[in-house]
Amino acid sequence: MNRPIQATIVTQNLKDNLNKVKNITNQRFVWAVIKANVYGHSIKSAFEGFSQADGLALLDLHDVHELRKMGWTKRILLLEGIFSEKEIPQIIQNECSIVVHHFLQLEWIEQYLSKLTPFEAEDFKSRVEIWLKLNSGMNRLGFKSGEYGLAYNHLIHLGFKVHHLTHFANADEESVFPTVADQWEIFEHTTQWMDGFRSAANSSAILKFPHVHADWVRPGIMLYGASPTGKYQDIAHIGLKPAMILSSEIIAIQEISKGDTVGYGSRFVAKQNTRVGIVACGYADGYPRHAKDGTPVWVFLPSPSDSQLGVKVGLIGRVSMDMITIDLTAIPQATIGSKVELWGEHVPIDDVAMFSDTVGYELMCAVTQRVQLKVL
Amino acid sequence: MNRPIQATIVTQNLKDNLNKVKNITNQRFVWAVIKANVYGHSIKSAFEGFSQADGLALLDLHDVHELRKMGWTKRILLLEGIFSEKEIPQIIQNECSIVVHHFLQLEWIEQYLSKLTPFEAEDFKSRVEIWLKLNSGMNRLGFKSGEYGLAYNHLIHLGFKVHHLTHFANADEESVFPTVADQWEIFEHTTQWMDGFRSAANSSAILKFPHVHADWVRPGIMLYGASPTGKYQDIAHIGLKPAMILSSEIIAIQEISKGDTVGYGSRFVAKQNTRVGIVACGYADGYPRHAKDGTPVWVFLPSPSDSQLGVKVGLIGRVSMDMITIDLTAIPQATIGSKVELWGEHVPIDDVAMFSDTVGYELMCAVTQRVQLKVL
Repeated sequence: MNRPIQATIVTQNLKDNLNKVKNITNQRFVWAVIKANVYGHSIKSAFEGFSQADGLALLDLHDVHELRKMGWTKRILLLEGIFSEKEIPQIIQNECSIVVHHFLQLEWIEQYLSKLTPFEAEDFKSRVEIWLKLNSGMNRLGFKSGEYGLAYNHLIHLGFKVHHLTHFANADEESVFPTVADQWEIFEHTTQWMDGFRSAANSSAILKFPHVHADWVRPGIMLYGASPTGKYQDIAHIGLKPAMILSSEIIAIQEISKGDTVGYGSRFVAKQNTRVGIVACGYADGYPRHAKDGTPVWVFLPSPSDSQLGVKVGLIGRVSMDMITIDLTAIPQATIGSKVELWGEHVPIDDVAMFSDTVGYELMCAVTQRVQLKVL
Repeated sequence: MNRPIQATIVTQNLKDNLNKVKNITNQRFVWAVIKANVYGHSIKSAFEGFSQADGLALLDLHDVHELRKMGWTKRILLLEGIFSEKEIPQIIQNECSIVVHHFLQLEWIEQYLSKLTPFEAEDFKSRVEIWLKLNSGMNRLGFKSGEYGLAYNHLIHLGFKVHHLTHFANADEESVFPTVADQWEIFEHTTQWMDGFRSAANSSAILKFPHVHADWVRPGIMLYGASPTGKYQDIAHIGLKPAMILSSEIIAIQEISKGDTVGYGSRFVAKQNTRVGIVACGYADGYPRHAKDGTPVWVFLPSPSDSQLGVKVGLIGRVSMDMITIDLTAIPQATIGSKVELWGEHVPIDDVAMFSDTVGYELMCAVTQRVQLKVL
C-alpha cells in the first residue's frame, strides 16, 4: 500500500480498557465482545489485548479457528449460535459456547445428537455450553418469556449445561421504553428458578446500571475507548483509551481565493482566501461520507521537542472516495507530507461520528481492507 | 464464514456496462476506473470484466502488482501519481502511466532521473507516460491554469510523453458553479497549444456532456451499474446492469404486538401486530447505519418455477452491527432460511443509498472483509 493512510492499534490500551471494566464491575466475569473483526481492530490485537478476559464473544467460526490456532484456550461464545446443523462438529471440536435463540437451533442440536453414539453425545455436552437467549423487549433475537422455560427444560433434559442471556434495547437512552429496568425485571422473573450464569450488561449498562452486572458482563465499544452513547463527554471521566488511531498525510495543497469552491457539489465556498490541505483519506477508506464541514482533523506540526504537537482544524467540502479537504489557513507550517490524525488520541472517534450523525461503532468497523493495519 | 451474507459479482454485467460506455462515447478510449478494490468488486472481477478497456485507472501500487501478475498488459494509470520518490522503480518496472498533480512530484521525478545513466533515463521515459492534472475548479488535486504550462514545458524538456487530465466538480449538478462548461473552457484554453491526449469525462459527463468526451473517458460508478447522481431513475433508461448483489438470509422471526418496539432506541413502534424478520446483515457488513425505516429489502419466496420470485418489504428499526430487522407481516410464506437481497437485481443500490442519504459509491466500497465475495 503506497497511500499514507494507516490504522494503528494500541494493544496496551485494549488491556487498560479491559482492566477498567474489571474494576467497574467489581471483577465480574467478562466476555470481551470482538465481533466484526474485533470492531475493526483485528483478531491479533484481541488475542493479545484481551488475554485477561474470561472469554471472547463473536460471530464467525472463521475467527474461532484463528483464535484457537493462536493458542486461545479460554471460553469462546458464538453470539448468534449456529446457522445450520452442519456447523456443530466444528463447534464441538473448538469447544465453543453457543447462544441458542430460536427453536430451529434447538432442533438442529437434537437432530445432531440423535446421530451420535452415547460416548460422542456426552463429549458434545461436556464441551459445548449453551447460553439461552431471552427476548426481553429488544425484539431481535431470543425466545419470548413464555417460550423460554420450554426451551430451557428441553436443553436440560437433553443434558446440556445452560446459562442465560438477554440484550438491552435502550441502555444508553434513559426514558425510552422498554427501559433497562423493564427488561431486567422480565429477565429476572423468567430465569429465577433456573440454574446457570446470567449475562445482560453491554457497555452502557456496565457504566450506568450496576444492579444488572449479574455474573458475566459483555463489554464491546468501551473496550475500544469509545462511548456507547456516541458522546465522548459521557465517558471522558472514566479514562478509557482509544485503541485505534487512523492517520494519514497531506498529499497536496491548494491556495484558493474568496468565493472559490472546493470539491464535489461545491459544498464549501471560501469566505476568505483559504489554504486547503488535501489528505489521503476518503470514504473508500471508511471515513464517513456524511461528515460535515468542521469535522475535526488533527494536523501534526514540525517540532523538535514534541512529536505530538499539532492543531485541530476543520474538514471543508464533501468527502471524496479517496480524499478529504481541510482548512490549513491558520497553519502555514503544514506542508505536503505533514501527518494528520483522523481519529485516535487527539480527535475522539466519537467527535467524528457526531459530525457524521452516527456512532463510533460504525466508523471502527468500516475501516476498509485497503487501509494498512499496524498492531503495536 | 458461517454467516449467510454474501456479495456476488456478475462479471458479465461489468462487460456489458463497459460496452455501453464504448457505445455512448462513440468508441472513445476508456480508462476503467477501478480504485478502492474495484469499488468493492475485487481486482479479479476487473481483470475479467474490463478486459476490453483500453486501460485501468487506480491508486494503489499493490493493485498494479496484482494486475500485472494476472497478465494485464495494457495501460495502467495511477490517478494520484506517486506518493514518494522511492516508488519510481516500481512504476518503471510495471510500466505505469502516472498522474502528476503537484510540483513536488515533478521534483521527485527530476531527482530520480539525475541518478540514472542515460540508458536508464531513456528506459524510464519510454515506459512511463505522464498525465498532467489541471485544477480547473475542483480545487482538490492539480496545477492551476497559470502553473500548468510551466509544469508541461518542464516535463517535455525532460523528454517525457505528456497527456492532459482534469476532473469535474459538478458534472451531476447542473446549476452549481463551477459548471462542466466553465471547467471545460479552462481545460481547453490551458492545453490548446500542447500535444498529447485529453481526458476529462467521469460517468456523469459521459452521460450528459458528449462535447467533453475528448480522447479518453474515465467511467467509474456507471461501470458498476449505479447512478452517478445517486438517483436510479437517472440511469434507468440506459440499461446499465448492477454488478454487485448483496444477499443474506432470515435468521430469526419475531411476532410482535401493536405498540411493541424493535431494536436499539426503539425506533420502530408497531402500529399493528407485526411479523419481524431478522436478517444477518448489519453495518459491520457495510450496510448503511443511516438507513431509514422503509428502506427496501427483497425477500425471495419459495417457488418451484421462478427462483427470482419475491416481494419488496421495508426495513424497520435501527440497523445493528450484525443484523437488520424487516417487516414480514405481508408475507407469511417467508421463514427462517429465506433468502433476501439487500441490493442488486431487485433493489437498486441507489435506492438503498437514497434511504441512507448517501450515494451508491459509498455502499459498494464499504462492503467489509467479513462478507464473502463470490465472483461469477
